[in-house]
Amino acid sequence: MEHLDVPQFLGLLVMMLGAAKLLGAAAKAIGQPAVLGELVAGVVLGMSVAGIVDPQNEILHLLAELGVVILLFEIGLETDLRKLLKVGGAAAVVAVVGVALPFALGYAVCWALGLGNLVAIVAGASLTATSVGITARVLSELNRLQEDESQIILGAAVIDDVVGLVILAVVVGLTQGQEVTVLGVAQTTAIAFGFLGGTLLLGTFIVPPVVRLISRVDLPGTPTILAVMLAFGLAWLASVAGSAMIIGAFAAGLLLRGTPHAHEIERGVAHLGHFFVPLFFVTVGAAVDVRVLNPIDPANRQTLLVGGLLIVAAVVGKFLAGYAPFWIKSNKKVIGVGMIPRGEVGLIFAQMGLASGVFDTGLFSAVTLMVMVTTFMAPPLLKYLFPPIKSTKLAPEPEGIEDLVT
Amino acid sequence: MEHLDVPQFLGLLVMMLGAAKLLGAAAKAIGQPAVLGELVAGVVLGMSVAGIVDPQNEILHLLAELGVVILLFEIGLETDLRKLLKVGGAAAVVAVVGVALPFALGYAVCWALGLGNLVAIVAGASLTATSVGITARVLSELNRLQEDESQIILGAAVIDDVVGLVILAVVVGLTQGQEVTVLGVAQTTAIAFGFLGGTLLLGTFIVPPVVRLISRVDLPGTPTILAVMLAFGLAWLASVAGSAMIIGAFAAGLLLRGTPHAHEIERGVAHLGHFFVPLFFVTVGAAVDVRVLNPIDPANRQTLLVGGLLIVAAVVGKFLAGYAPFWIKSNKKVIGVGMIPRGEVGLIFAQMGLASGVFDTGLFSAVTLMVMVTTFMAPPLLKYLFPPIKSTKLAPEPEGIEDLVT
Repeated sequence: MEHLDVPQFLGLLVMMLGAAKLLGAAAKAIGQPAVLGELVAGVVLGMSVAGIVDPQNEILHLLAELGVVILLFEIGLETDLRKLLKVGGAAAVVAVVGVALPFALGYAVCWALGLGNLVAIVAGASLTATSVGITARVLSELNRLQEDESQIILGAAVIDDVVGLVILAVVVGLTQGQEVTVLGVAQTTAIAFGFLGGTLLLGTFIVPPVVRLISRVDLPGTPTILAVMLAFGLAWLASVAGSAMIIGAFAAGLLLRGTPHAHEIERGVAHLGHFFVPLFFVTVGAAVDVRVLNPIDPANRQTLLVGGLLIVAAVVGKFLAGYAPFWIKSNKKVIGVGMIPRGEVGLIFAQMGLASGVFDTGLFSAVTLMVMVTTFMAPPLLKYLFPPIKSTKLAPEPEGIEDLVT
Repeated sequence: MEHLDVPQFLGLLVMMLGAAKLLGAAAKAIGQPAVLGELVAGVVLGMSVAGIVDPQNEILHLLAELGVVILLFEIGLETDLRKLLKVGGAAAVVAVVGVALPFALGYAVCWALGLGNLVAIVAGASLTATSVGITARVLSELNRLQEDESQIILGAAVIDDVVGLVILAVVVGLTQGQEVTVLGVAQTTAIAFGFLGGTLLLGTFIVPPVVRLISRVDLPGTPTILAVMLAFGLAWLASVAGSAMIIGAFAAGLLLRGTPHAHEIERGVAHLGHFFVPLFFVTVGAAVDVRVLNPIDPANRQTLLVGGLLIVAAVVGKFLAGYAPFWIKSNKKVIGVGMIPRGEVGLIFAQMGLASGVFDTGLFSAVTLMVMVTTFMAPPLLKYLFPPIKSTKLAPEPEGIEDLVT
């Protein structure tokens, strides 16, 4: 599996896309978001069931990351920066409380179980970051991206992804026995948020004239590829600058939204998204090890207990965070539920904990269980609380694109 | 370079796409096909100049192969099977003569230079297969895909790609000291061609009803992804069956052409093509080592002499093959020139020769030189002999796609 020749690679892509589309359709048929089916497709193809998709495989990992970068770029293209800034205060409060509360609850759970200080910190940290990919995809499928609740969720998820990075930097330092200084943390935080602010500020002035200039040159290929290059380029810069890649991709979408080619780009990128985005969700699903769910194996009971308590901490912490901006009129239940899914970042913490020896395999599995359950419970809950509305798009697409992000 | 982390990978894609689009536009500005600019972009980014793109890198290799599979699928979608079969006799004659003559001339050159029997066979074999990707892309850029000459070139290039595989199997056997039996060769040939015939025969009956069935199910994603799955799936099957991947992809295009979704698929796949196809040409360009061109280094003189003679053999052999179907009225010069570019397959022979110890590095470089020169001379020559015509498409694309394969 580590080394793939070209035909094997093509076969793997066919199986991943086929399972994603098939189970996505099945999920829709029983009234669930398609993303749930894509995640299940990943579980089925993953190492603990069919053994076909190895999420650790380098090329699958790279393609999956292209998928989430393209997804966040698409979400950025659909997001009105002014609308987002209008709810910025509420989003910031949701993000901060949604990081602090799950961390505290997770820490408390581990402390109560007598697992030690460092273990409790890493486990608590793994509860902090919402998977913006899953939430954004579900909101997009429900045609609800333009609602205030969605803007708050999206803003908070983007912010807590950046916070998650800062926490990750701190926790990596801790597990390596480094001293954590206030100055260091402040610096990491400033860089992570500074990139987003700086890019948006500079980009607002630079991107529109550059787009005008480029559309005059006879470049082969559509504006779509140039837009994708901006998304990849900003994602790369974001990472080099010490911020999160998806922040760069999201910023690229925000910046291109106002340009004359935005609609054309949106449709073109959707085609790339249809290809790459399911690869991301299948890979996330493939990281799930269903064997830890078997309660007959006594070795799993401790894992299920710890995992169950972490799930409660994860769900309660984010749900209550939805109520933190008490002054707003929006549906706070929806905001809280929208923040529940943990994904990639939670798994990164789990893997880091295992690799550094802070977690044993039991605790690693408990955190994975928490990621799995929160990821899978959010789409149906969100759909129940926030029923889909009909598309508000003006005209039916001539080429039969049902919705931007499917 | 071997191990890429995600931000590096994104940066690399930005550089490859950026250089391809920029030099593609520059090529068009001086009246050359864009593909020439993309190949030059590859040379510039390649290991012998900038050292950024390593064509041996596994991930780039896989993505480049996706590019050529998608390209041949696009070409298949634009190709009318009946038209292709109508010129099938002429195409078969061009293919057979275009394999035999360059092989004989290449063998003669090496024999005259006293290089030994096995060396002469491998070098001769490296001259046999036309790079269907480069030729198809140029014909598509010239809006000439529907002409008889193009159909003959395309048919012959597809056939000689399959013949190239058979020769490769034989040559690999020879370099490993195996005995070559007539039965074995006949078997390999039958499988390689049988796959194409069998797929087209079965597919004509199976694909239309399956497409009708699937379009009734509410599958998330556009028909484009299902079409891509068919292309990848047939490419995979072709390889498993012992035929060439691009044959499977081309067959998928031919089969879907007649279906009601063909136009929609064509536009959707074009977006994926804009992304993946330039990665293929940049990777081909990156395999060029410009250092062997330096005549001041005495070590290069022998290489330049052998390479020069191989180039003559390669060009004369394919050019004369264009005149082999003497009974047809088409422009035979165009056909001959269209067959000149060697690409991937030539390089595969060169690498195999080097790896098996049959070639020394000098001869390896000479074959690379032949691939390089034939690849770079064909686009401008073809454009000169076969000037582009205005698009015959009925309506301008609403989303500004200038042409299908750019």
